[in-house]
Amino acid sequence: MSFETTATIASFGGKLLKLAHQAKSTSCQMKLNLYLPPSASSSKPAPVLFYLAGLTCTGDNGAEKGFFQHMAAKKGIAIVYPDTSPRGLELKGEDDSYDFGSGAGFYVDATAEPWKHGYRMYTYITEELPHALFQQFKELDGNRVSITGHSMGGHGALTLFLKNPGKYKSVSAFAPITNPINCPWGQKAFTGYFGEGEKDGRWKQHDATELIKKFKGETDILIDVGTGDNFYKQGQLLPENFEKAAKEAGKKVEVRYQEDYDHSYFFISTFANDHVEHAAKHLGV
Amino acid sequence: MSFETTATIASFGGKLLKLAHQAKSTSCQMKLNLYLPPSASSSKPAPVLFYLAGLTCTGDNGAEKGFFQHMAAKKGIAIVYPDTSPRGLELKGEDDSYDFGSGAGFYVDATAEPWKHGYRMYTYITEELPHALFQQFKELDGNRVSITGHSMGGHGALTLFLKNPGKYKSVSAFAPITNPINCPWGQKAFTGYFGEGEKDGRWKQHDATELIKKFKGETDILIDVGTGDNFYKQGQLLPENFEKAAKEAGKKVEVRYQEDYDHSYFFISTFANDHVEHAAKHLGV
Repeated sequence: MSFETTATIASFGGKLLKLAHQAKSTSCQMKLNLYLPPSASSSKPAPVLFYLAGLTCTGDNGAEKGFFQHMAAKKGIAIVYPDTSPRGLELKGEDDSYDFGSGAGFYVDATAEPWKHGYRMYTYITEELPHALFQQFKELDGNRVSITGHSMGGHGALTLFLKNPGKYKSVSAFAPITNPINCPWGQKAFTGYFGEGEKDGRWKQHDATELIKKFKGETDILIDVGTGDNFYKQGQLLPENFEKAAKEAGKKVEVRYQEDYDHSYFFISTFANDHVEHAAKHLGV
Repeated sequence: MSFETTATIASFGGKLLKLAHQAKSTSCQMKLNLYLPPSASSSKPAPVLFYLAGLTCTGDNGAEKGFFQHMAAKKGIAIVYPDTSPRGLELKGEDDSYDFGSGAGFYVDATAEPWKHGYRMYTYITEELPHALFQQFKELDGNRVSITGHSMGGHGALTLFLKNPGKYKSVSAFAPITNPINCPWGQKAFTGYFGEGEKDGRWKQHDATELIKKFKGETDILIDVGTGDNFYKQGQLLPENFEKAAKEAGKKVEVRYQEDYDHSYFFISTFANDHVEHAAKHLGV
């Protein structure tokens, strides 16, 4: 469905559009933010960076606190900030916890009841949303797309990249969940969205550490993790597992352990420039 | 009273400290954020920029959404983000409106009942807070201080600068209330904090447009205002009045009317670099 633009906000020389549309894959209205850099036009469409946010977030957090627009404006890159789950489906338990259900879609297509009715963020982010955006906004170049994300959104960015060779020109992540089948957040989510019976099936198909072992293409993956990040310390992120798997598979992954940084947007904003520049390099700008 | 540090957060190579202290002038505990750039140390103390926030804000808004730390880190400038009023004094009507009472101290010392019991943000910001900070944090250079602010905080920055020649090396403002005696927000606040009888007295003593007419020193004031700012359109800011008064008094004021920008932190973050650089020039860094 086409987008309604509910607000147009000047930001770093470009425009931040607050958008809403009815999505088929998630069976509800989805909101998002779209940043158009000053250089974007239908005659000179901008390459696109998707930013997938983490648990509890919406498309607003990154747009307000991530400071991606600063470098995106300079490089001429558009940024898409989607929501993190369907909203208001009124499924039982949907709003009961911060790490499952609303605000916690984990960028998968659920197969278990009742979540399979709408919790289909994988299809939404990889297919429905880009198709709808590229159809309506001629300022966007649908052939040059990269992806990044934070925490659960870092998991989303890595898995979407690794499951769809060629779809994204590059991937990077901030404090990503890299091995969800082996961390409490991921185990809870996958149990709920897929069921325990899918442990050797769908769980592994949405686990970045498992996926990179079999990835055929080349990679140049940038990951930042703060050493003061409590979720890192608690073993929710497990970047070492991803790094090890990548190394054994001969894939290029740079994990930068950033001294003292935590899991917050203070961490993300500090390194936002680097991630936009990483995408820019692969997007040819 | 000395500060308690309730959190230390890595940001742009430096540290954002969440502080709290008992303040005499405001008769309550005051919270604030202090950003120390990576270069700050007791042997090389950093110059300081105060950022005064607008109506409804706390010291968190600027720290999270202002994007000041990015350039402050590069220039080696510390930033103080104070709260906008006392909190929890339990004065009648204190929390009834967004533009008066809590979150709306207007950076004045109230003289009317009951507000004179604690609504003394002028003394807090110009005296108690800097004295306490410079005593405890030897990483700060109390002899090199500049000030900036947004909306009500822009009014605060301009009036504190103009009322205290020499205290601040420079001033700038984002969408400031520049002529409060002639706008609804200012008239409501000054009626409450001073009383109608002070119209020719204390009202004018806290009005930037009145103050610049009589200011003796030199000025180099940078102001940004968005042309899409609804509060500007409604006549709450009146930068033209300030500009005219400054021009007639032979004072240097640059008001930049930024096409389409609104009153939000998307506007502030876009021009934060310019304001930190403006302060840096006057702070000698």
